[in-house]
Amino acid sequence: MKWHNKVTSLLNITYPVVQAPMLGITTPEMVAAVSEAGGLGSLPVGGLSADQTRELIRAVKSLTSKPFAVNLFAHSVPSSIDAAAFTAMQEFLTSFAAVNDITYVPPVQEMLRFHTYHDQIDILLSEQIPSVSFTFGIPEDEHIATLKNRGARLIGTATCVEEALLLDNKFVDVITAQGAEAGGHRGTFITEGNPPMIGTMSLVPQIVDAIRRPVLAAGGIADGGTMMAAMMLGAQGVQVGSAFLVCNESSAPNAHKHRIQNASSSDAVLTKNFSGRWARGIENKLMRAIGESGLATLPYPYQQSLTASIRSFAQQKDLTDFATMWAGQSASKAVRKPAAAIFQLLIQQAQTSFELIERHVQVKE
Amino acid sequence: MKWHNKVTSLLNITYPVVQAPMLGITTPEMVAAVSEAGGLGSLPVGGLSADQTRELIRAVKSLTSKPFAVNLFAHSVPSSIDAAAFTAMQEFLTSFAAVNDITYVPPVQEMLRFHTYHDQIDILLSEQIPSVSFTFGIPEDEHIATLKNRGARLIGTATCVEEALLLDNKFVDVITAQGAEAGGHRGTFITEGNPPMIGTMSLVPQIVDAIRRPVLAAGGIADGGTMMAAMMLGAQGVQVGSAFLVCNESSAPNAHKHRIQNASSSDAVLTKNFSGRWARGIENKLMRAIGESGLATLPYPYQQSLTASIRSFAQQKDLTDFATMWAGQSASKAVRKPAAAIFQLLIQQAQTSFELIERHVQVKE
Repeated sequence: MKWHNKVTSLLNITYPVVQAPMLGITTPEMVAAVSEAGGLGSLPVGGLSADQTRELIRAVKSLTSKPFAVNLFAHSVPSSIDAAAFTAMQEFLTSFAAVNDITYVPPVQEMLRFHTYHDQIDILLSEQIPSVSFTFGIPEDEHIATLKNRGARLIGTATCVEEALLLDNKFVDVITAQGAEAGGHRGTFITEGNPPMIGTMSLVPQIVDAIRRPVLAAGGIADGGTMMAAMMLGAQGVQVGSAFLVCNESSAPNAHKHRIQNASSSDAVLTKNFSGRWARGIENKLMRAIGESGLATLPYPYQQSLTASIRSFAQQKDLTDFATMWAGQSASKAVRKPAAAIFQLLIQQAQTSFELIERHVQVKE
Repeated sequence: MKWHNKVTSLLNITYPVVQAPMLGITTPEMVAAVSEAGGLGSLPVGGLSADQTRELIRAVKSLTSKPFAVNLFAHSVPSSIDAAAFTAMQEFLTSFAAVNDITYVPPVQEMLRFHTYHDQIDILLSEQIPSVSFTFGIPEDEHIATLKNRGARLIGTATCVEEALLLDNKFVDVITAQGAEAGGHRGTFITEGNPPMIGTMSLVPQIVDAIRRPVLAAGGIADGGTMMAAMMLGAQGVQVGSAFLVCNESSAPNAHKHRIQNASSSDAVLTKNFSGRWARGIENKLMRAIGESGLATLPYPYQQSLTASIRSFAQQKDLTDFATMWAGQSASKAVRKPAAAIFQLLIQQAQTSFELIERHVQVKE
């Protein structure tokens, strides 16, 4: 089974399968394993400093010479926030942490400095990154031009047709259609309110019809059958996240992995309590407590900073009650195997999915 | 292209395509046209009297001798409701109607009598209905046994794996997996709170894996490509609703049809403001006003009765601001053609979807 289409040629990969960038989960080892297997590993660096970005990129390069993507956050940081709301959330989290025996180091609002993709773009250029993916928005025209002039392929994220059209008009090479099933942050950037939550089955064909670029389907793509379903929708490739959540190379600790594997689809809820941006993850005590506090969440990345110390403590101690456990609606299918084995199984299943249809339907007389 | 699987044999149809029952939209003409084309038309009768049910069934029979399904609501009516909440909603709707020049005939709480499927089951038996589908719950064991003993095939609706397992254990013949993309009422019956909103891409494979019965995929199935995608997910058939919303046989008036065809996916929102049960439809003035009133909606079917007169007035005058416009996330793909032509195109597209994949991928070397 040989795959050859616009996605495989543009991204210079053997199979049109992108491993989704999962900040806090994805390691350089995961990225390298997927790229070595013939897909496109994605290194998430959203919000990191230039030095951290360079270090992670070099870690991947030490493990593979195959192409991989680096994933940026293309948001803008609000110039000002409601100081009273910041203090109220901080006070709530301080007492929540105390009651739950969590070491909490509250951020000082005046001291907060946030990295954006502007801090990282020179690193990406000097490291000659072949594919640059982004979410939460669109990089500025000059940055798009610079990256493209230096030969980088750009992959943007859309959660509705309107966003896909904006990306198309900016000459982004490949567009990821992120269906409502997807875990982690919604890539939404055209609305401040509730994000569009359009299922993959509806979103992918509509974006394919509307734009000129090849489309990657994301959201619910967990095995070869769902991959081939996405191809039937007109996608030319897929982005797979949750299926790699508990792989050997994932940095999730043990209890976290256990919780993911035992989640029902309804456990993966939409929240902005952790980061200030809408994201899908397994509901837990911290998520509920912030919701029940009745306090307004701060805009991203302020809310993210406010909860960071609790979530980091939980990650270190493997406390699922207080950790961020982003997960899609098919996350319970994830298995604890090397990423390469997960990848190879998916490719095999894609082929046999044709036989599945032939079992149920006689397609040709 | 010959289709033959458990769904086509159990339901005695040529193609594994069920037209979704859409109360207020589906006419006997639509049901007959789909059954004549080789699919399974579905006549919605939820909440109707025995006489109305018989009359509609006979209208279908006068148009086709092919098998069709009759669709029941298997809910239970709350034994009591909050009288003050009922009055508050009624007063709100009375003034809303007055301001908007709508003739509103408020229901009198004490006079309300609701039909349930118990009133209809004898008609279904005497009319020898070949397939009985249901939503909002599971009929009682004795009714399941009676229907099955008389040769009827049962089709139940599940919105999560847990509901599918309950249906499986009751020996329901076919299970419709209703993904979050679907228009109209959610079939959810195991939870009182927010319904599980699991996308078709995640829900269908999980239900297929969990149960022994053949599965129909619903939600986002709007053409041949989405149909074949559903088959890739392990479904043995599909249920198609929105694609028939604006067909010639639809009872939707003109402006209503126009609004559906010009909807974006994000316009079809989840609400319980119209009926008291969660359903997906195009947002309009009535839906927003009830939401903004801050009043609690009454449980189904009380809220349904309270808003009925406004919605019926809107339907007659073709006022999209006040009508119920249930629609799925792919409803804008719907076209104004005879149902038979829509059906035949879908079947043709399903076949050519294989060629689409071959265009993008060389499946075999």
